[in-house]
Amino acid sequence: MGQDQSSVFDLAAVAAASNGGNNDPLLPPARFIGDPQKPSKMPYNKYVAYDKQVPFDYPQRTWPGKRLERAPRWCSVDLRDGNQALVNPMDSERKLRFWNLLVSMGFKEIEVGFPSASETDFDFIRMLIERELIPDDVTIVVLTQCREHLIRRTYEALKGAKRAVVHFYNSVSVLQREVVFRKNKEEIKQLAIDAAELCKHLEGEAKGIDLYYEYSPESFTGTEPEYAVEVCNAVIDVIKPTPEHKMIINLPATVEMTTPNVFADEVEYVSNNLNDRDSIVLSLHPHNDEGMGVAATELAVLAGADRVEGCLLGNGERTGNVDLVTLGLNLLTQGIDPQIDYSNVPEIRKTVEYCNQIKISERHPYAGNFVFTAFSGSHQDAIKKGLEARQVAADRAGADLDSFVWLVPYLPIDPKDIGRTYEAIIRVNSQSGKGGMAYLLKTNHNLDLPKRLQVEFDKIVQKYADETKKEVKDEDIWRLFKDEYLPVEESGATAAGAVVGDHRDESLEQWGRLKLLKVSVSSGEDGSDTVLKAKLLDRGVGASNAGEPVVRELSGIGNGPIAAFINAISNLGIEVSVMDYVEHTMSVGTDAMAASYVEAQVGEDAESQIIWGVGIDSSIITSSLKAIISAVNRSER
Amino acid sequence: MGQDQSSVFDLAAVAAASNGGNNDPLLPPARFIGDPQKPSKMPYNKYVAYDKQVPFDYPQRTWPGKRLERAPRWCSVDLRDGNQALVNPMDSERKLRFWNLLVSMGFKEIEVGFPSASETDFDFIRMLIERELIPDDVTIVVLTQCREHLIRRTYEALKGAKRAVVHFYNSVSVLQREVVFRKNKEEIKQLAIDAAELCKHLEGEAKGIDLYYEYSPESFTGTEPEYAVEVCNAVIDVIKPTPEHKMIINLPATVEMTTPNVFADEVEYVSNNLNDRDSIVLSLHPHNDEGMGVAATELAVLAGADRVEGCLLGNGERTGNVDLVTLGLNLLTQGIDPQIDYSNVPEIRKTVEYCNQIKISERHPYAGNFVFTAFSGSHQDAIKKGLEARQVAADRAGADLDSFVWLVPYLPIDPKDIGRTYEAIIRVNSQSGKGGMAYLLKTNHNLDLPKRLQVEFDKIVQKYADETKKEVKDEDIWRLFKDEYLPVEESGATAAGAVVGDHRDESLEQWGRLKLLKVSVSSGEDGSDTVLKAKLLDRGVGASNAGEPVVRELSGIGNGPIAAFINAISNLGIEVSVMDYVEHTMSVGTDAMAASYVEAQVGEDAESQIIWGVGIDSSIITSSLKAIISAVNRSER
Repeated sequence: MGQDQSSVFDLAAVAAASNGGNNDPLLPPARFIGDPQKPSKMPYNKYVAYDKQVPFDYPQRTWPGKRLERAPRWCSVDLRDGNQALVNPMDSERKLRFWNLLVSMGFKEIEVGFPSASETDFDFIRMLIERELIPDDVTIVVLTQCREHLIRRTYEALKGAKRAVVHFYNSVSVLQREVVFRKNKEEIKQLAIDAAELCKHLEGEAKGIDLYYEYSPESFTGTEPEYAVEVCNAVIDVIKPTPEHKMIINLPATVEMTTPNVFADEVEYVSNNLNDRDSIVLSLHPHNDEGMGVAATELAVLAGADRVEGCLLGNGERTGNVDLVTLGLNLLTQGIDPQIDYSNVPEIRKTVEYCNQIKISERHPYAGNFVFTAFSGSHQDAIKKGLEARQVAADRAGADLDSFVWLVPYLPIDPKDIGRTYEAIIRVNSQSGKGGMAYLLKTNHNLDLPKRLQVEFDKIVQKYADETKKEVKDEDIWRLFKDEYLPVEESGATAAGAVVGDHRDESLEQWGRLKLLKVSVSSGEDGSDTVLKAKLLDRGVGASNAGEPVVRELSGIGNGPIAAFINAISNLGIEVSVMDYVEHTMSVGTDAMAASYVEAQVGEDAESQIIWGVGIDSSIITSSLKAIISAVNRSER
Repeated sequence: MGQDQSSVFDLAAVAAASNGGNNDPLLPPARFIGDPQKPSKMPYNKYVAYDKQVPFDYPQRTWPGKRLERAPRWCSVDLRDGNQALVNPMDSERKLRFWNLLVSMGFKEIEVGFPSASETDFDFIRMLIERELIPDDVTIVVLTQCREHLIRRTYEALKGAKRAVVHFYNSVSVLQREVVFRKNKEEIKQLAIDAAELCKHLEGEAKGIDLYYEYSPESFTGTEPEYAVEVCNAVIDVIKPTPEHKMIINLPATVEMTTPNVFADEVEYVSNNLNDRDSIVLSLHPHNDEGMGVAATELAVLAGADRVEGCLLGNGERTGNVDLVTLGLNLLTQGIDPQIDYSNVPEIRKTVEYCNQIKISERHPYAGNFVFTAFSGSHQDAIKKGLEARQVAADRAGADLDSFVWLVPYLPIDPKDIGRTYEAIIRVNSQSGKGGMAYLLKTNHNLDLPKRLQVEFDKIVQKYADETKKEVKDEDIWRLFKDEYLPVEESGATAAGAVVGDHRDESLEQWGRLKLLKVSVSSGEDGSDTVLKAKLLDRGVGASNAGEPVVRELSGIGNGPIAAFINAISNLGIEVSVMDYVEHTMSVGTDAMAASYVEAQVGEDAESQIIWGVGIDSSIITSSLKAIISAVNRSER
């Protein structure tokens, strides 16, 4: 064993001892917003800042001003790094299922195992080769440490393959050189050189295989970038790649140790200092210990990386490898083809969860259950308006909506593009405003409530939400709406667009004074007044089935059916004046239902109320009269 | 409605139409590693790159060369933004439990609700104030939109409070101005100014409250930074904060829309262009739509932000608010006091999961079940060596291990510092090498296997792992070890340090030719040869309880008990020569057990084997003889 320096622990202890200076409260203990934060009892002095472990600066950096322009080359390491991090590694059935998923999504490089370390991996690779399961345009990658017997075994695993990448690695970090390998820089570099030379030597035994190489200075993030370059260049000088037959230099963020700007600096430095750069594919292998794996990858791609290794939905050792799904769909939201098919995220998720036997979080970007859900009222309102504005803009442009430009508040991606639906977009709870309720009524029940009616009904929904303290589901909203505005005995049958309400809701109490039984309308050809005759069931003032129902036949006259009906019911002592009236069809076609909304002043003078009524019927006359009855009944409730 | 420009959809459609150029395969369709990636069918042309939506560049940026130096001011928005994103928002009991957790961890600013939008929030704030549950050094923040009736209601909620921040916001993004508010830039700015003026006006009704203000240009990430500054400065000019009585300007990444370098540029630009910067606390409110919320926050802190709003473990709308736990513990790993107490992450997680009724992922940084678990053999080996090297370094420095500098491969944080244990660090599966097995035997059974014995036993473990395809649990390893090396009838009783093996394992088949019944040793005072007498049970050659047991009394002589014993059993025709011998105590004290390991050549010439044996006994003589018997029995198995 040879040491280049005194122990890392000694150096680190000195560095850590100087930590204290930066831990003063940020704000002076003045009046600003209470007392300042207090020091915690967390033992920060045992930790050493990254730039004291690996001092490095790269003021020449150009990546901060760059933007993503194209997809990198992707390599899935699900079957290797992902698999080795599972409580129960995949058996052949699960491995093959994962393999088939990756191939179907368009991955062209797939790391399939560490055959010298695991018989399961070895057998799986043999099965892929012997059963000819590897498409011609897909390349398998196999991992090995830089140790002779492991490398030899790796070549055995590859016999008969058409093409493969032999991926050899050794750990080169400051810490691992000292505590794991007890070797100095030269000795560690020699391990890599020896491995590269052995690989070249074994090519004779690999006849017929179109062989490529990948070298990883493992624990790159714990390594002086200058030394990492030195080792990589020594390997490159042995392998002698060409622009026509490149090799991969892969930089593993084996442990994520600092902010991604530093990682990007390091990658740009390496990219600018590798030998034969045009013969090299510079690759990343990020992990996620500090929760920044996706960002570190994207910034390092700006910094010059050509290729990314990761796992679907971020499986992998500890906090996982970088998530390829998030990376790919982030590119899509920037107008860049990820060159991988993520059009069915639910299916991808299902397979990944099955094979890994680990569930992803409800809030996982793009794939989690809640990521297309907005509970906040203002968000819901904005999404509703945004979807409408997009529809209008697409119509104006004569464009197909599904392919029209996607700009919707709070939704960075069209759920449809990744196999998800709008259904879950809007959910209503006590934190929601009227936007969510209005969206659900429109989407699921074809009812487009006028703004002031939204305000009125919203109070009813909010009261219910505050009382129950639970999510108000679509069926709850629909039940509340029916109970409030529609005659109970008809609400099921008449709401043609109802998703939920297609059966009668027995739980609703029947109430309401008036019910329309029959109506006939006539008007002269010369535009004279309309004459209306109506047969009504009258359950009595303030009726909740208390009084004995009486059938009343009434007639009225006016400049249209509504005015005539109002005139007719004035015979019952009911005074109504219409303040606003809106009507729309609920679907396309001659048998479409119409929804009518009336804002009416009911009663006289001091006792009058301004109140909304809703009516639904296949006849627009009947629906409007029902709306007036709805308002009258509500005013007496 | 006034429009500054043609519709965003028109501009976006033009931008999206130019997307195609960047989607060529990165690598030429040459021989390199198979065919290049193919274009997918993902509809990238409906998405508009961020820099086409919000063109902005800031070459003056200084943040990429900076490093984190101290904790920002933290504000938890769990009770507001987190709560509003729940399927079932918290009731008072859960809210109060969350509040108590936040206060106990050291949060000094807590956003407690949106009282004008939700009665539940209003009532909770009244309860905090009326029951005097707010410590003197904690400040509550209440959110409101910039609308008069909501602002008035907000002040009602605050009556009787000692100190509070009124947080008003309006959305200022390009998209929301057009599709949600249908107002032009001046009109949107005026909403904010009006709100600020109303707040100032209402101060008269808020007598006795030490009032502060926070303004958020909501959807900041979708806003031209120049315009966001214009609106913020207009608000600042109304509020007129001072260095002694600052106000908060909060920049919400309401939707994460691009790489964090761009966000950091925007924040640095805002920081440099706000009026009265020394009277402003510049705050961030990041979300996580692209999975980069943590990184965006850290880079924006480098860019000049003073304060961060987020939620514990990343709850919040859609993909969540930025995770305060990850941010805080990332600081700790850099030797910086987070100024929040994260010393009991399991307890924090338990409370958060209870209150939110959402589980976090197994791989959640710092808090997930698997983040201190290493299944990979090389990782396990490195962790084991790293822990040992750290122990040695601490001993050498005379330092307390718990507070000694933390440098361990693959473990960026000491699990103990956040209330977790080492137990789960090492788990063994078919992907593991000998490191994990060796660590478990050492940690849980006090057996420190010599390296070559590790290699030998590892093959047995790997075979088992490959056959069962499951995680090899500690009890499996211990059962395999006992069955292989220890006499069955004693294995339970003798392994004093066993966590699992304290009861007899009935599932193991009894096997082995020899069993030691009694031994006596004598040696002269002058260092002469040792004479040994042993009573052995001999079940016959190759015995698996097949032969009839015979008790044999043997004697031997040698320069020590081992040599004498070998001499004695040579009378049975058993030829043994010891190649390596290691022994250690298994605990401290006079009643400690000793473990002996013998590497022996058993048999003669061509038929000999080199094989290990293990013995455990309170007597170091007996344990060493048992080790030889173990090797002999194994050689005949």
